Amino acid sequence: MEQSVLAAIKSIIPEERIFLNLSDRYSYSFDASFGEYLPDIVIQPKNTEEISELVKLANIHSIPVYPRGASTSLSGGPLPVNGGMVLDMSRLKDKLIIDRENLLAIVSPGVITGDIHKQAEAVGLFYPPDPSSSHVSTIGGNLLENSSGPKGLKYGTTKEYVIGLEVVTPTGEIIRTGGKTVKNVTGYDLTRLIVGSEGTLGIITEAVLRLIPKPQERKTLLASFDSLVQSGHAITGILSAGILPSAMELMDNACIRAVENFSPSGLPLNAEAIIIVEVDGHPAAIAEEILKCEELCMKAGAASVRVAQNEDERLSIWKARKMVSPAITQMGPTKISEDATVPRSEIPKMMERLNEIRDKYRLNLVVFGHAGDGNLHPNIITDKRNKEEMKRVEDAVSEIFEAAVQLGGTLSGEHGIGMLKAPYMEMELGVDGLSMMKKIKEAWDPNGILNPGKIFPKAGQKKVVLT
Amino acid sequence: MEQSVLAAIKSIIPEERIFLNLSDRYSYSFDASFGEYLPDIVIQPKNTEEISELVKLANIHSIPVYPRGASTSLSGGPLPVNGGMVLDMSRLKDKLIIDRENLLAIVSPGVITGDIHKQAEAVGLFYPPDPSSSHVSTIGGNLLENSSGPKGLKYGTTKEYVIGLEVVTPTGEIIRTGGKTVKNVTGYDLTRLIVGSEGTLGIITEAVLRLIPKPQERKTLLASFDSLVQSGHAITGILSAGILPSAMELMDNACIRAVENFSPSGLPLNAEAIIIVEVDGHPAAIAEEILKCEELCMKAGAASVRVAQNEDERLSIWKARKMVSPAITQMGPTKISEDATVPRSEIPKMMERLNEIRDKYRLNLVVFGHAGDGNLHPNIITDKRNKEEMKRVEDAVSEIFEAAVQLGGTLSGEHGIGMLKAPYMEMELGVDGLSMMKKIKEAWDPNGILNPGKIFPKAGQKKVVLT
Repeated sequence: MEQSVLAAIKSIIPEERIFLNLSDRYSYSFDASFGEYLPDIVIQPKNTEEISELVKLANIHSIPVYPRGASTSLSGGPLPVNGGMVLDMSRLKDKLIIDRENLLAIVSPGVITGDIHKQAEAVGLFYPPDPSSSHVSTIGGNLLENSSGPKGLKYGTTKEYVIGLEVVTPTGEIIRTGGKTVKNVTGYDLTRLIVGSEGTLGIITEAVLRLIPKPQERKTLLASFDSLVQSGHAITGILSAGILPSAMELMDNACIRAVENFSPSGLPLNAEAIIIVEVDGHPAAIAEEILKCEELCMKAGAASVRVAQNEDERLSIWKARKMVSPAITQMGPTKISEDATVPRSEIPKMMERLNEIRDKYRLNLVVFGHAGDGNLHPNIITDKRNKEEMKRVEDAVSEIFEAAVQLGGTLSGEHGIGMLKAPYMEMELGVDGLSMMKKIKEAWDPNGILNPGKIFPKAGQKKVVLT
Repeated sequence: MEQSVLAAIKSIIPEERIFLNLSDRYSYSFDASFGEYLPDIVIQPKNTEEISELVKLANIHSIPVYPRGASTSLSGGPLPVNGGMVLDMSRLKDKLIIDRENLLAIVSPGVITGDIHKQAEAVGLFYPPDPSSSHVSTIGGNLLENSSGPKGLKYGTTKEYVIGLEVVTPTGEIIRTGGKTVKNVTGYDLTRLIVGSEGTLGIITEAVLRLIPKPQERKTLLASFDSLVQSGHAITGILSAGILPSAMELMDNACIRAVENFSPSGLPLNAEAIIIVEVDGHPAAIAEEILKCEELCMKAGAASVRVAQNEDERLSIWKARKMVSPAITQMGPTKISEDATVPRSEIPKMMERLNEIRDKYRLNLVVFGHAGDGNLHPNIITDKRNKEEMKRVEDAVSEIFEAAVQLGGTLSGEHGIGMLKAPYMEMELGVDGLSMMKKIKEAWDPNGILNPGKIFPKAGQKKVVLT
């Protein structure tokens, strides 16, 4: 980094929030996907104005800017692939205001998402989006990736709960989008354009979130099936009966075995699939609904159905689900976590395709996911040092994407494109669809300084070299 | 229109779907706002490919293109203000598919929104968005304006129910955005960018809508108050109690009098405000909730509360609400219908400001609206031939917008900017916010042919000349 540029940065940010030595920079070189990219400089801004100044400077000197939350991204979102400047957003966390009268939360981007849950629930309110990493991930990162978790079926995705933003644009201007009203049609919906844009269209410096009253009660069941098709029928049966569960999770046999191996939870080792169904709402309503769900699972051919009779039993069902990620992580040094999503009626077919892909490429592939909204999480356990196996992984991942798109689905339900899925964008969007997105990026970020190397494939790029 | 251009159009569209004579063109010169603008030609395309060809041709010859649904727009959305070509979308109505398994509807843009309601409800499903004009307006127009109606508080706006689109871009390419899954983060959210873009960013030729199970039952009450502040307390009290009504409507005294004058419905003539609260869901849940709402209204100081005891009584309460628009229309030849929206806690203050504005400009101003989501509908009854009064109307409208923005709200909750609110965009968005929107428009529509003259103010334009 040129001395004059560094001096300009130091005129904006005090030295104790600027990091230049290798060990510090190394700490910012990775996320929860894989790949390591050293930034040239790491900066911890404290407010919107500092970010605006830094982005303006970056435009003048063509320095890549990489905003970074808690770096739990599974798609390489915050990786500084072109070097440049990492903006560690963790110090922007002064605001977490719950506005009870308007059912809103006003938050800084560095606030932990789980803290919003806690503060809202303390006053009887509820923020439904709940990515698995919500106890550590920041709301800024959640919004930019539009990661949503298990409640999408009933409550919609993260995007549905963001109604206003303060944003630093790629050229350093500070704008406000949307506001504090659920209804707002004044011009284009920049709020929803920026949410899910993976840090390529702007840096969120404040957000207005919509809250809802907290559901009074929850009921949960776990059903096991000897065949995937039966579990598919149970899922469809429940939805067709007019029940909208707050969560409907699926785990395949490989996933069940992984969990039982890691932390025995009493899951049926021989089941080809288990589903967890949770309903929430008024006690009288959900008492009826959970019974109906039980009936429908049995009717679909469940080998067993267990309805949690109390909060302890409910938590023990969820414990098994939450063990999935740690259990899988233990199975090998590298975990490739995908989030291909299909219309829910296609889940049985997608599961079949995933089985074929597992066999064809001889890979350790486990599948779990949010069955209610078709958002599956096929995970491949591998070792990135094994170049021969990584080649097979790459081909398998490519086939998973193809299968999802062929079944009317999408490459990514909630992890984002990042750098890992960029080469597959055209397969889903077509040349023209991708081109409309690029036009927005180019119009807003003419110098290409904001999170460069993400989302858009390089010309001719067909695959990511995983190793 | 040049003969060579006309010949080119005739090579795309058969003559019986092309209209050139004055009387036909006149029928397409107005909408439900006011102002008349004659198009040069009216075309009724029948499919996406025809539209794509026409738009490409329009780009070559710089012909303005105005897509048009049922033209119930209250903001001048479809008006062909620069002449050119009106595309009457009413013939694109072949698709209305309800996909029960995936809880989706796939629809053509010319389908009447009310028909989607009917078809969905016939199989136990539900499409919540319900603009007052839904029995005549088309889904294409509803989507492009993001008009939502009374259920926004509980169910969110129209946008929350659109997950995929087929679109003809401003340069004539056919793209698909989103898809059939609720979760989709593959690139930018073009779906939500186009929904609400008022026909300036693309022409919707197909949409995938999300449906939910139909609520089992509804309960409704009507409460009257001697003061607006009391009704505000009732609204806040209900929401703070953890109840999320499916509708919460407000009518002021001028509105009550207008309805009673037009069609006596037993509304209390002396009340300063009445509110209608409806809850829906499981019978046991809503039986409790409606009692709680009644209590909270009384606690807030209601003069009277009437809970509908059966479906007839429920419908008669709603009949009074639905009489508002016809009642007002009868009061004078010109109705200026606004939709300024404020955070709901600011409704009492906004009502006060509206009273001041009514007195200051000596206008016939009545107020009703969707109190739950802060979306008010101040309506001014006037006569557009009275130039002196129209000047006062214009100043009053300007002050209404200022008040909404000052209270943290927005110019438009659901009617759109169209041409009538364009001059006020900068007041809400700031120079930079507006500029980011313009950059998208310019990048996507370099020849400025799609719905020109809308949304963006002309340089230096401060007001719309209403007459």
